Amino acid sequence: MTKQLWIYDTTLRDGTQREGISVSIEDKLRIARQLDRLGVPFIEGGWPGANPKDVQFFWQLQEQPLTQAEIVAFCSTRRPHISAATDPMLQAILAAGTRWVTIFGKSWDLHVTEGLKTSLDENLEMIRDTIAYLQLSGRKVIYDAEHWFDGYKQNKDYALKTLLTAVTAGAEWIVLCDTNGGTLPHEISLIVRDVKQFLPPNTQIGIHTHNDADTAVANAIAAVLEGATMVQGTINGYGERCGNANLCSVIPNLQLKLGYNCLPEDKLTQLTNASRFISEVVNLAPNEHAAFVGRSAFAHKGGIHVSAVEKNPLTYEHIEPEKIGNSRRIVISEQAGLSNVLAKARTFGIELNKNNPAARQILRHLKELESQGYQFEAAEASFELLMREALGKRQQLFTIKGFQVHCDLSQDVDSCNSSALATVKLAVNGQDILEAAEGNGPVAALDAALRKALVNFYPQVANFELTDYKVRILDEYSGTAASTRVLVEWRSDFQRWTTVGVSTNILNASYQAVVEGLEYGLLLPPVAVVEIH
Amino acid sequence: MTKQLWIYDTTLRDGTQREGISVSIEDKLRIARQLDRLGVPFIEGGWPGANPKDVQFFWQLQEQPLTQAEIVAFCSTRRPHISAATDPMLQAILAAGTRWVTIFGKSWDLHVTEGLKTSLDENLEMIRDTIAYLQLSGRKVIYDAEHWFDGYKQNKDYALKTLLTAVTAGAEWIVLCDTNGGTLPHEISLIVRDVKQFLPPNTQIGIHTHNDADTAVANAIAAVLEGATMVQGTINGYGERCGNANLCSVIPNLQLKLGYNCLPEDKLTQLTNASRFISEVVNLAPNEHAAFVGRSAFAHKGGIHVSAVEKNPLTYEHIEPEKIGNSRRIVISEQAGLSNVLAKARTFGIELNKNNPAARQILRHLKELESQGYQFEAAEASFELLMREALGKRQQLFTIKGFQVHCDLSQDVDSCNSSALATVKLAVNGQDILEAAEGNGPVAALDAALRKALVNFYPQVANFELTDYKVRILDEYSGTAASTRVLVEWRSDFQRWTTVGVSTNILNASYQAVVEGLEYGLLLPPVAVVEIH
Repeated sequence: MTKQLWIYDTTLRDGTQREGISVSIEDKLRIARQLDRLGVPFIEGGWPGANPKDVQFFWQLQEQPLTQAEIVAFCSTRRPHISAATDPMLQAILAAGTRWVTIFGKSWDLHVTEGLKTSLDENLEMIRDTIAYLQLSGRKVIYDAEHWFDGYKQNKDYALKTLLTAVTAGAEWIVLCDTNGGTLPHEISLIVRDVKQFLPPNTQIGIHTHNDADTAVANAIAAVLEGATMVQGTINGYGERCGNANLCSVIPNLQLKLGYNCLPEDKLTQLTNASRFISEVVNLAPNEHAAFVGRSAFAHKGGIHVSAVEKNPLTYEHIEPEKIGNSRRIVISEQAGLSNVLAKARTFGIELNKNNPAARQILRHLKELESQGYQFEAAEASFELLMREALGKRQQLFTIKGFQVHCDLSQDVDSCNSSALATVKLAVNGQDILEAAEGNGPVAALDAALRKALVNFYPQVANFELTDYKVRILDEYSGTAASTRVLVEWRSDFQRWTTVGVSTNILNASYQAVVEGLEYGLLLPPVAVVEIH
Repeated sequence: MTKQLWIYDTTLRDGTQREGISVSIEDKLRIARQLDRLGVPFIEGGWPGANPKDVQFFWQLQEQPLTQAEIVAFCSTRRPHISAATDPMLQAILAAGTRWVTIFGKSWDLHVTEGLKTSLDENLEMIRDTIAYLQLSGRKVIYDAEHWFDGYKQNKDYALKTLLTAVTAGAEWIVLCDTNGGTLPHEISLIVRDVKQFLPPNTQIGIHTHNDADTAVANAIAAVLEGATMVQGTINGYGERCGNANLCSVIPNLQLKLGYNCLPEDKLTQLTNASRFISEVVNLAPNEHAAFVGRSAFAHKGGIHVSAVEKNPLTYEHIEPEKIGNSRRIVISEQAGLSNVLAKARTFGIELNKNNPAARQILRHLKELESQGYQFEAAEASFELLMREALGKRQQLFTIKGFQVHCDLSQDVDSCNSSALATVKLAVNGQDILEAAEGNGPVAALDAALRKALVNFYPQVANFELTDYKVRILDEYSGTAASTRVLVEWRSDFQRWTTVGVSTNILNASYQAVVEGLEYGLLLPPVAVVEIH
């Protein structure tokens, strides 16, 4: 028998507290619809009493409602010494027009007396009054007990009293929040067990954890194992400081390993896609090393090892990556063997038989390039071009005939705005083109000159964006005269790719990576990462 | 009574398995010495039988040993059906000349029969023979039981037998490895408890976890709570796929929250620094949201909250950030940390009184530079120059009046030998000098031109060597137009130093770092055999 669990996503409120995230209403709507399609049952939309943008967000959702998820409005308990009915914040949460609301209140005596500057009794009354009023107004109430675990440790009797007050006032769920994020899993287990014993039977418990001790996911699981039926967290673990419990880890752990029912099974396979889509919308690079959904989460190195993985994956992988929509990835590295090359070719949709002489040719070429310092682990676009070339499938989209770069910093030695000039000569469809462009630095100038030359033939280059640029010296004892490896990362809409160049001259290495990046971008189909429909 | 725990760092072996990390011997030595200074008792250096670079690393450490840490060489059990004494891999591990060695062997029956293609009995014999042979050769042996938790679940009796074999053969520690990283904390607890009951009393147990389920830190803690006395992990959680248990989280959790003794207390305050230093050496951006050591880990937003935090920090922070060398950060107004500057000055051997106006001046200048992207953790030489300047102790050894760089690759687009031409104009002792030089690449050309101009005045510049050059883009969303940070490493005889430059133009950033590197080198005493920290 599967045990039902309710996932409560707070990416749109707690998640956006992360430094560096700033989302528009349009972004929030796209994320909400994505979570709705993923099958998440509760989506916290924001705090309409504190943020005017959130008010609009809820209105827009009233006009075009979600298909299955409950959108939840968030608010604190009423202010001290007024009645709930007269608190404008609570009027704002009612105006959001949701069926469910989440109210957070104080559990820790010190936060009541020092923070709210009110009495412990008044705090209980604020909890009771707020929940009762919202219920009377037709809302279902989830109660978030802020600073719960610290409050419990400091004054257990009072902390428990706040929960009982919320239950008695009619809250549907009592959510225990580790607001400072420092609690460890074994403490969570003990405290949740104690709460379960204290509260009336059948009271529904939820858990809300933060990652300050690097155990947010384990903490959520510990609470579920003690009977919590709601888990609050965010996609990709976004949140203040060190983030919230990462739902992309919580969900597969609970559903695939512990048999809880969190998402409809056919939706679970959309988890990786949802994670990447949301990281694109909030404009943060996806964490490649993220558990479950990261690009490296099921990456394998080494020849013998790879054939073993393909024969019996579960001896080397803790879950089947397909179940969450991720995939096994064969890393092309120094230890590459023929089986790696073949497996890699398959991921690019190229069927290559091991008796095909091209396979050995690719391997030989790869080894040769690696001995020069090329590294394809992180530059799969360059590797794909290399494969295509060996298979006779690389089109000549343009030919570079030369380039020059000139930087003059004489006027401007201490300024950060010094500019560089690049001149390129190239041929497209038999036609010679000479172009020059300036940029902040030689690589930007080179990139600009190349695009200027190509845009009339391939207008899509205007959308390509050079997003990162990494340089590494390969021979530590020769300094600037040694080989330089340049990795360049690109994107165009939702697609990202990386290319590599190696040379003793950093500009030549950059040039190789920039040229291959433009070429690879031209080969891509219009869109790769899509919203789930 | 504090309970003793042994931290075993495997950043240099397992950590370097992370995609995108590629370290030189010099990088590995710098990391090892940093960990040594941090007080880590065991540092795994590499697998000398599998990697020729690791052989050299161990030799270099024999010449200049660490101060307190045991450096450990890593290897598998001997191959099937030969004697340990004749296995060349084991000869390589002996040649590493360490007191401690770690041997990993198979615990999962399927990996024995399918992977090693040998019998279950022969695997036991391989474990016994290898450990006994190394012990007889004077080594202390740590035994890593690979795929332990999966092996236990599949064939508990056999898995336990492998451990007992290792204990009987004389292993000092039995380390349970969650190689696939998918085990959850409550399973770890149960299994470690069972192992403790099964093995002879006083057998020392260790734990080695991976983060595939996003619970590596919680898993390590769970094992310690059941009596494990060694934790294996990596700095910043670097490692294959989703990484290893992050020691930067494991150590403060165990030491500050659970009362275990992991590092000397005065060393714990160096943890944040070590984390950032190592991320610079491996050329990866530090994770700002990392638990404990991240720049955002103790970030607070402005307003009432901040004064509440300052009045009573422990109501808003799970630990005191200073205990691990991190600091509270006020997000909106980047508030001054004069004590930070004083502390930083102290780490560079400059005693600065807080009433000295220069201290505030340095702070102001430092903040300004850091907001531009400068980073001094790994560029001590540049920081010392900045300090000297504020204290009126920076001599004007030469003045740069301008430079130009020109690269023409028209003739030679696909060659790796393309050259660059640099022209510099500078003044020394009131005398103007114009010089030009060629080099493989613009930075080499610039370095050559500067030295050509300086060598008549300061002959020692001929001995300076530019040993490494690292580039990082600071704003990943603006690509080549974003700020570029260049770190340049130098040496002259036994002395090494690092400088930093930041600019939107990579050549300008390089120029700053090269010029400061030459200047700093000129300040060094002519013959000195000093370690620079």
